[in-house]
Amino acid sequence: MLALAGYPLGLSFRFYDEVPDAPAGQLAPLVVGKFDDHAALDRFADGLDVITYEFENVPVAAVRHLAQRIAVYPPAAALDIAQDRVSEKKCFQSLGIQTAKFAAIDSEEDLKAAENSVGFPAVLKTRRMGYDGKGQAVVKSHTEATSAMHQMGGKGLILESFVNFEREFSIIAVRSTTGQTAVYPAVENVHSGGILRQSIAPAPGVSKEHVAAACKHAEAVIKSLNYVGVLAIEFFCKKDGVAANEMAPRVHNSGHWTIEGSRTSQFENHLRAILGWPLGSTEMRSGQAGMINVIGGVPDADAVLRLGAHLHMYGKRPRAGRKLGHATIVGNAIEESVRQLRAVIERTNC
Amino acid sequence: MLALAGYPLGLSFRFYDEVPDAPAGQLAPLVVGKFDDHAALDRFADGLDVITYEFENVPVAAVRHLAQRIAVYPPAAALDIAQDRVSEKKCFQSLGIQTAKFAAIDSEEDLKAAENSVGFPAVLKTRRMGYDGKGQAVVKSHTEATSAMHQMGGKGLILESFVNFEREFSIIAVRSTTGQTAVYPAVENVHSGGILRQSIAPAPGVSKEHVAAACKHAEAVIKSLNYVGVLAIEFFCKKDGVAANEMAPRVHNSGHWTIEGSRTSQFENHLRAILGWPLGSTEMRSGQAGMINVIGGVPDADAVLRLGAHLHMYGKRPRAGRKLGHATIVGNAIEESVRQLRAVIERTNC
Repeated sequence: MLALAGYPLGLSFRFYDEVPDAPAGQLAPLVVGKFDDHAALDRFADGLDVITYEFENVPVAAVRHLAQRIAVYPPAAALDIAQDRVSEKKCFQSLGIQTAKFAAIDSEEDLKAAENSVGFPAVLKTRRMGYDGKGQAVVKSHTEATSAMHQMGGKGLILESFVNFEREFSIIAVRSTTGQTAVYPAVENVHSGGILRQSIAPAPGVSKEHVAAACKHAEAVIKSLNYVGVLAIEFFCKKDGVAANEMAPRVHNSGHWTIEGSRTSQFENHLRAILGWPLGSTEMRSGQAGMINVIGGVPDADAVLRLGAHLHMYGKRPRAGRKLGHATIVGNAIEESVRQLRAVIERTNC
Repeated sequence: MLALAGYPLGLSFRFYDEVPDAPAGQLAPLVVGKFDDHAALDRFADGLDVITYEFENVPVAAVRHLAQRIAVYPPAAALDIAQDRVSEKKCFQSLGIQTAKFAAIDSEEDLKAAENSVGFPAVLKTRRMGYDGKGQAVVKSHTEATSAMHQMGGKGLILESFVNFEREFSIIAVRSTTGQTAVYPAVENVHSGGILRQSIAPAPGVSKEHVAAACKHAEAVIKSLNYVGVLAIEFFCKKDGVAANEMAPRVHNSGHWTIEGSRTSQFENHLRAILGWPLGSTEMRSGQAGMINVIGGVPDADAVLRLGAHLHMYGKRPRAGRKLGHATIVGNAIEESVRQLRAVIERTNC
């Protein structure tokens, strides 16, 4: 989606991936290599003007290696923080942003101490390399926590208090090399099994006060990190305000609706940001936009399009649980449209 | 632009062009061959599901050759008519659509007879292979007409009465293999030197009656030709109604604004049409849209984007008079926005 947004801007692309059948290879030359293969990384970087990534588990070492020669955005320091749930929460707290209670867990002693400071129910997660709900478990007692801890390797973990949230939403913010910033309308999200299923913008169930607070927080984060590119932050709505859950230093699934729903997509604005070009308007094009993820199976394109939705398939091979694409619908009375769209797509989701 | 619209639909592409540096080759495999090279055409066609074209001077023989094996849309018969200005005008007239007076010119006798039936001023054009104002001359007298006729090869010409039009506009219509049709809002166009410079939709200076008549005509044409895909028809506004000028059996430059301005772009709808998928809404997304062509030189991207416009470069090498891209701006009070955008782009146009 970055390349599809970038070709019209007169840009050309080269991709790097660990696997030779990476879908991006359909759109531009693909260099295949492991992320610790410096020779392959150098071959990839040769002659490029700027490098970016859209996967938050790229090793920071690979980014730092590339950044010795060529500008890489988002900056390695931001990636480093976002990859570690403890650093991430400390970053939020240092900016006065509420988070769940948390404690780093590297031993049974840590866990015992955390059971008091964090309490139950709680969520035990790996500090690093988690996404789409992978590497986490809800735990309600000492026994469950101890068992989950051992299953997850016993260290490099974080225990977070279970947030009894009413709604979850995300803020997609963008900052350019020039310091220009912009924020998209807040997006209300529905996850299931740890995977994003549905997004609606502007977030229908989130109060103006919560959105305003979250936007302020997002601006504070991108400025404090000297961030460049698109950054997504997930928030929970609680009775006493908003709490930041996590951030993703990349274009984000909850911003895919911007292709049709906003005047400038998150993909185009990410490219403009890393090039130092003027950011485009993040306003809605129309009243509302809804997005449903295509997961595991290929939907009936005819039925999706017949609803007036827009289909985006990513050129990936179907596999249960794999995000293969998404569909977006814009207009008014969006919740009913989204319900219909979701019903069509979930027929083949698996 | 067809490929950029088609990848999200889960499609894959292969291109055919006579030159190896065709810009489309940046986006998908490119087969290079002349249009009369049947072996190259067969190599190109091998394994494809459907074939289309976006250049109206593809030889009909090449289309017919490919169509023996694989569905090719728009149909060869429509291309055949559109490639010959005489057939094209006869087609319009057979459907009750007004055109300029015209006569086929293959000899001095033809010219002499035409001077009476068509009159002066007139436009002498090649019947075939003209585009962007190439192969035409305005003639005001027998002497000028005779001289132009000899310069144009003395035959295969058409003399058309000079239409003293007030406005020129186009209708972009689309018809699917299923027979479903849709029409975009009318587009008012400004040509200069035979090249489209500017389009605004919905056509601000064209009366509702003229638009309604032209839409009816466009629907009649696509139905009578059993057309499949996007068809553009250019019309003149005259005191006594609308006159059809010419048709283009392809996605059309005056429809490029649909990428941002319409709910479904002409490119996506062309693909949906040839695949027999449901057509998308052709409604405006916003109040108005304006498009300025980038011709000959590369514009200052920063200045274009700063206006809130969207830039589309085609990956072509700059050359005086060559269409290298376009920029689109959407919103209200569009004529002032378009004026500003045109001023920025014309700094580098040549």
